[in-house]
Amino acid sequence: MDTRLEKQLAFVLEADKLKNVFRQTHLSRHGRSENDAEHSWHMALMAYLLKEYSNENVDIAKVMLMCLIHDIVEIDAGDTYAYDAEGLSTQKAREDAAKRRIFSLLPADQASELISLFDEFEECETAEARFAHAMDNLQPLLLNNGNDGSDWKEHRVTADKVRARQARTALGSETLYELSFRIIDENVKKGNLKE
Amino acid sequence: MDTRLEKQLAFVLEADKLKNVFRQTHLSRHGRSENDAEHSWHMALMAYLLKEYSNENVDIAKVMLMCLIHDIVEIDAGDTYAYDAEGLSTQKAREDAAKRRIFSLLPADQASELISLFDEFEECETAEARFAHAMDNLQPLLLNNGNDGSDWKEHRVTADKVRARQARTALGSETLYELSFRIIDENVKKGNLKE
Repeated sequence: MDTRLEKQLAFVLEADKLKNVFRQTHLSRHGRSENDAEHSWHMALMAYLLKEYSNENVDIAKVMLMCLIHDIVEIDAGDTYAYDAEGLSTQKAREDAAKRRIFSLLPADQASELISLFDEFEECETAEARFAHAMDNLQPLLLNNGNDGSDWKEHRVTADKVRARQARTALGSETLYELSFRIIDENVKKGNLKE
Repeated sequence: MDTRLEKQLAFVLEADKLKNVFRQTHLSRHGRSENDAEHSWHMALMAYLLKEYSNENVDIAKVMLMCLIHDIVEIDAGDTYAYDAEGLSTQKAREDAAKRRIFSLLPADQASELISLFDEFEECETAEARFAHAMDNLQPLLLNNGNDGSDWKEHRVTADKVRARQARTALGSETLYELSFRIIDENVKKGNLKE
């Protein structure tokens, strides 16, 4: 078989493992833990449907692809919960090693392209990366809101931490940032989140 | 809250249910059953990475979005296994009703856009729909091939049925059609698929 196609298929099969990386977020209707592949699918779909709320014009194909690949490093590095300070301190080193190993399964041109796109997401300095980050923040907030804040309760997360995490949403979308603050305030009122 | 945004969020939350629609395909390394959201994520990613093999030039953002939404009707209609003749006979009616209910949660312009895109996928007459179908066929073939044909064995599917299903792949990609036939032949030789 053509070596280029073989490499692409090896990556496609490796990517399958993302379906076994579970997050702290639970599916709606008090469902099971969500995995990274589902989360990435949901984010990419949301990015398309909510693109009118991006602060800046975005190349939506690029945003969608960014959403699809942004967690692939977690196949090796595992999911780091947004409010886990210890895990967060080693996250970058773990994810850098994973990035090199996993994307390098692809032909060199595509490996380079996806590593650049992953780095662009991480650096959060372009319109596309900012909007993708807004999706990455909003998606679990919507699920958690629908579940009466069960994930926040389980991890005893306070409202100020959730607000701090959502701060970056404003860079991508003022409208969705305001929405997220309304959702947080409602959950504080209901007792789902403590100040 | 703005009614338009409310409608979009209602759809986003409804779409979450796709993570609970399970397929006959199993994840690689003899894993659990795959769900529709994961399958859609995998297809969209594959579409981007394998786009050079499309017979015709495609609008890749459109193909990716098609992949992301092509199974959403199964939230109501359930998954119909590719080799289940009885299920296939009622599939269209079940999916049409689901399509109207689910996409209509969105604002009218987006409902209309997504219904058109879903119909375009189903009709399989544009370059984008044909390439998306090639992904829909190839993705489970790759997983099943990696699992020594366990899904075919379980359902006693014969090689001619798998070849017939892959026939549509040729409309989207001659290269990936040839690949799928090589994979089928290899599995026949290994005894994973019976002629």
